Amino acid sequence: MKFFPKELKFFDQFELSAQNLLKGAKEFLNLLENYQAQGLNERIETLRVIEHEGDIITHETIEKLNTTFLTPIDREDIHALISKLDDVLDFIESSAVRMQMFKITCPTEQSIKLTVVLYKAVEQVVEAISRLRNIKQPESIIHHCIEINRLENEGDIIQRTAIADLFECCINPIEIIKWKEIYENIETAIDKCEDVANVIEGIVLKNA
Amino acid sequence: MKFFPKELKFFDQFELSAQNLLKGAKEFLNLLENYQAQGLNERIETLRVIEHEGDIITHETIEKLNTTFLTPIDREDIHALISKLDDVLDFIESSAVRMQMFKITCPTEQSIKLTVVLYKAVEQVVEAISRLRNIKQPESIIHHCIEINRLENEGDIIQRTAIADLFECCINPIEIIKWKEIYENIETAIDKCEDVANVIEGIVLKNA
Amino acid sequence: MKFFPKELKFFDQFELSAQNLLKGAKEFLNLLENYQAQGLNERIETLRVIEHEGDIITHETIEKLNTTFLTPIDREDIHALISKLDDVLDFIESSAVRMQMFKITCPTEQSIKLTVVLYKAVEQVVEAISRLRNIKQPESIIHHCIEINRLENEGDIIQRTAIADLFECCINPIEIIKWKEIYENIETAIDKCEDVANVIEGIVLKNA
Repeated sequence: MKFFPKELKFFDQFELSAQNLLKGAKEFLNLLENYQAQGLNERIETLRVIEHEGDIITHETIEKLNTTFLTPIDREDIHALISKLDDVLDFIESSAVRMQMFKITCPTEQSIKLTVVLYKAVEQVVEAISRLRNIKQPESIIHHCIEINRLENEGDIIQRTAIADLFECCINPIEIIKWKEIYENIETAIDKCEDVANVIEGIVLKNA
Repeated sequence: MKFFPKELKFFDQFELSAQNLLKGAKEFLNLLENYQAQGLNERIETLRVIEHEGDIITHETIEKLNTTFLTPIDREDIHALISKLDDVLDFIESSAVRMQMFKITCPTEQSIKLTVVLYKAVEQVVEAISRLRNIKQPESIIHHCIEINRLENEGDIIQRTAIADLFECCINPIEIIKWKEIYENIETAIDKCEDVANVIEGIVLKNA
Repeated sequence: MKFFPKELKFFDQFELSAQNLLKGAKEFLNLLENYQAQGLNERIETLRVIEHEGDIITHETIEKLNTTFLTPIDREDIHALISKLDDVLDFIESSAVRMQMFKITCPTEQSIKLTVVLYKAVEQVVEAISRLRNIKQPESIIHHCIEINRLENEGDIIQRTAIADLFECCINPIEIIKWKEIYENIETAIDKCEDVANVIEGIVLKNA
């Protein structure tokens, strides 16, 4: 029974990471919805702190993993799950930093639409992760994974339309370069949510 | 002996996936060689259906993997092989979608040349996969893997020349952005064929 | 004891790969610091030979891994470490090739600054790898890993500033496309050094 408390800690770490990710996604959506070039630096600094907090959680989890003999679920799944959660946050921070680097004065409607989808996907990630302890009730976990897949498709369509519009309507190539990269970064963040969902599905299938 | 029929199914899945990939590669090459801006949407829809079919095969295989106790080859190799096969098709579809998104009126000669190499690499992937059941005759499997490596080098040179030419000859930066991305997508599809070959080589070495 | 000599060979391979990587990083830094459009082709050919040598070392190591029954450290760590080392060199070669493809006449100050950081990170990789045999003295190995993390942060800041400056100062979109890609390639090479450090940290934690 000695291993038991140790084992439970991995689920705590997943939840910590997912909650921190949700905080980052909320901050980024808020940044876009109430965008002001002024004060941008401080708000991006806030996101950077959240991203750094995510790095620490990830690093601690991997350290714990490498020094724990018995794990409640497969070692490679623990590693994949905590890394993919971290990837989502990295791409959120990277999207925000690009707003600053590219001196964006006003976010496009489509970038906000895409970020709403990202935020919803992160909410589903939090839901799925919080149910991972009850692995013997797999239906509700899988339900959230399917929802993440649906949101990823939705995001994909928005991103492709946004980029097509960019080439259709924008005559300034420098603007095209900037927005194309921002759209791609947000879309990649959503993709990484789908990676999280895939790891969770694998864990459920193996353990249910 | 109970596990035997189950085990064989993984090879069926690999072949299904490879055949579906070949269908996609043929469709894409045909799209470029007989390019017409009219009717493009329908043909890209066809490719999207093939890509979706690939997703289903991949998903089924991973589900089967997660619920199978004994596998004929290492679990991580099954996962890697089916995922990498899927990646090739994803980048083929993504290349085709970009033709549409960017409203390309006429493919460049070099994009066709690169796609011919991609198609040949996919043919070699099909050959190697179909021989994987006879793992005790490794020479012919390895022969196709080496051919994929050769084709990847050939593709790399075409892509680098095509991009250098783009910057040399094209004065419209928007055209450069579009074609650079299309070339990179096709080249990445070929790279993913090489990833498939590397996984196959590993399987052969471990089991021969 | 029969397995012992075999096992040691993996550390030899890591050192071979790291030394070859250092040679490539030195060659690339030298290329930038003493840049001449004339003679560029020959110098890039030298880098290509080094990169190819890296491919051979990697391929040999994976072959050895697939045919060795007992390994001194986890199989997946051997695979990850040799692959990540190879990735660093790939991105160095790819950065150099882009100088040629884009017909760069003069490297920017920031590209040299970024490459100095890359070179320092590679030096730290060599140091960490050379201490991997003495895994029971983990402090000095970890010390070099932390230094690589610090250099990656330093590189990240330089790259972000360089790209922001590019959009701020450069009015030619084609120049922006070129330099943005070169900066991203060099930065990715540094990122891959951090991946190497993460694998090494994992190995140390598991085995110390």
